[in-house]
Parts: sequence; C-alpha cells; structure tokens
Amino acid sequence: MQQRIIDTAESMFFRFGIRSVTMDDIAKELGISKKTIYHYFADKDDLVEKVTENAMSNQMTKTCMIIDASKNPIEELMFSTKMMREMLENVNVVLFFDMKKYHPNSWKKYMDFKTVHLEIVKKNLNEGIAQKLYRSEINVEIMSKLRVETIDMAFNMELFPPNLYNILKVQLESIDHFIRGIVTAKGLEIYEKTRLAI
Amino acid sequence: MQQRIIDTAESMFFRFGIRSVTMDDIAKELGISKKTIYHYFADKDDLVEKVTENAMSNQMTKTCMIIDASKNPIEELMFSTKMMREMLENVNVVLFFDMKKYHPNSWKKYMDFKTVHLEIVKKNLNEGIAQKLYRSEINVEIMSKLRVETIDMAFNMELFPPNLYNILKVQLESIDHFIRGIVTAKGLEIYEKTRLAI
Repeated sequence: MQQRIIDTAESMFFRFGIRSVTMDDIAKELGISKKTIYHYFADKDDLVEKVTENAMSNQMTKTCMIIDASKNPIEELMFSTKMMREMLENVNVVLFFDMKKYHPNSWKKYMDFKTVHLEIVKKNLNEGIAQKLYRSEINVEIMSKLRVETIDMAFNMELFPPNLYNILKVQLESIDHFIRGIVTAKGLEIYEKTRLAI
Repeated sequence: MQQRIIDTAESMFFRFGIRSVTMDDIAKELGISKKTIYHYFADKDDLVEKVTENAMSNQMTKTCMIIDASKNPIEELMFSTKMMREMLENVNVVLFFDMKKYHPNSWKKYMDFKTVHLEIVKKNLNEGIAQKLYRSEINVEIMSKLRVETIDMAFNMELFPPNLYNILKVQLESIDHFIRGIVTAKGLEIYEKTRLAI
C-alpha cells in the first residue's frame, strides 16, 4: 500500500504540481481513507520527501540501465537526454516551484543528487576521451562540474522564467551545445548519426 | 585627487584583496592624509563601490575597443578572453571573497553588470550566425544566458574553491568549450587559427 500511495502521489504531483494536490485528493484517487495515508506518512511534507526519494531511485536505476545498454559514451548521453525529455514532457513545471518553496528538504535532497550525477558525468567524459570521441585536452574535473551546474541552470526559475522559457528546450539546447563542445571530429560524426536515430 | 585615490586603491585591492588594505595603507601609499581620503569618500565601503564602478567602466571601454578592432566575432571572443586572462593573472582572488562578503552592494553592482554583458554576448552570437561562423540552429536567447551564467560559475567559490581550482583555468576551459560548441566547420577553422595568434 505504501508504494501504491507513493506512485499515485507522484503521478498526481507530476500532473498538477504539489500545492494543489491535497491528501484528500490522493486518498480519493486511491479509493482509500486519509487515515490510511497518515498511517504510512507523518504529513504531506513527509510524503513529498518519500516521493522524491522514490523518483530519484527510479532515475538512478534507469541511468544504470542506460549506461549498460549504450554502445558508447555519446549514445549514453543521447539516451539520458531522451529520458530527461520524456520526464520534462510529462511534468507540470509548477512541481519544481512548489517543491523549492514549500518542501525545501525534498528540494535539497534532489539538489544533493548532483554529487552522484557529477560522478556519472566524469565517468562519461573519461570514457569518451579513452575512445577518442571527446577531445583529450578536456579538463574532466572542471568540465563535469560546469555540465552538472548547467543542468541546474535550466531549472533556475529566476533565470529562465517558465512563462517565457520552456525548460525542455533550454535543456536540449544546453546538452546539444555541451556535446558539440567536447567531441573530436570522429565523435561529432557519431553524434550526428546517433541523435537522428534516438 | 579623487581619481588618483581610486586608481591606487584598485591596484592595492587587486594585489592584496580588500579586507587587508586599510584606509591608512592607501593614504600612506599616496603620501596623503587619511582626512583627504574621507573628504572624497564617506567610508571604505563607499570607496570600494567607487573603485568597482570605475573598474566596470574601464572594462566597458576596453570591450568596446575590442568589438571595434575585431575582424570577426570569434576574434572578438578571443580578445575578450585575453583581457580576462590579463585581469585574472593579476588579481588576488581574495578580492572576490572580500567583495562578496564585506561589500555586498559593490558585489551586487558587479553582478548586475551581467545584463550589459548579456547584450554583448547576444550581439556576438547573432553576428557569428550571420557570418556563418556559428551554427544557425543556435537559440541566441537561451545560449547567451547560459554563457553569461557560466562565466559567473567560475567565480562561485563554493563550486570552485580557489584553493582547489584556478579561476583562470576554469574560465579558459569554459570559453574554449563554449566556442567549440557554437561554431560551424568554417568557424572552427578560424577559431583554431585565431587562438594560436592571440
């Protein structure tokens, strides 16, 4: 039941944001009593935190599958981009607003995920360099940090107000530029082919 | 006299940071009394603000000269990089620490300079696209914001602690990556030639 509540809440938060979804709405959607929800979660903030942890864990699993399934580091970046695209196409951006403003603990957890992400990017860069798909002059330590921070930039609502900018468009622009900036001629060729196929 | 005080203070702040330079030190260096300094500036915070405004105005003048003197947008970026390199090679990074922590008004002014910088980057991108040196698919609105924010990133001391990272190295890594990410094949050729010459 706990997992069912988490999954349902996540799906509702994705559609409507967090603030406009009440514990009553979630109970109704599941056809259970609000008491049942409070049996598993102390309050809404606790539920939001568990949903966030669950979403992060799912994202981690998917990322590992992508790394496993990819033929090369460029394909890995393309599949990750696809995963992000699917997520952002299905999310109401109000979710990020609400999370940052009303559930700072969850937001912090989501932001702390960066350290994991940083390691993934570093590994990708090192492998790309080893396979001569990325330029060998790249400073992996610096470039990985710049990349991970740039991903966050697109979620910065002061910088890219959602009423003026589409988060997905910003992310796609930034990943495309990132890849073009690191590849060798050979890597660029593979990138141009791969992006049409994925 | 006011300008002499500003110039001397700027040069001392560059060498030693702000906090360790007292009004006494500046007076001594100029061979004047502290009273003379206080005739022109209300207090140290006021002096720091005037020094910041002066430095920004000088930077603006230099940037205009660079835009004027450059044969193409790539050369313009290279000359700007050279200007930044010369600045960062001669600055004690403690200056940025001190400014942010002890002179938030001046720091804010320095940060607000971004809006000017944003326009310069936009103009550069549009001209590069017009000259077929940059890819025509670039979203100038998004890319210019990403670029200006990335410049700031290198000054973010939580992200790149100065004891672990060299600000200049971070900036050079990021500008090199930025240019490679936006150029066409023709632009890349010009970039490779220009960067060896400047």
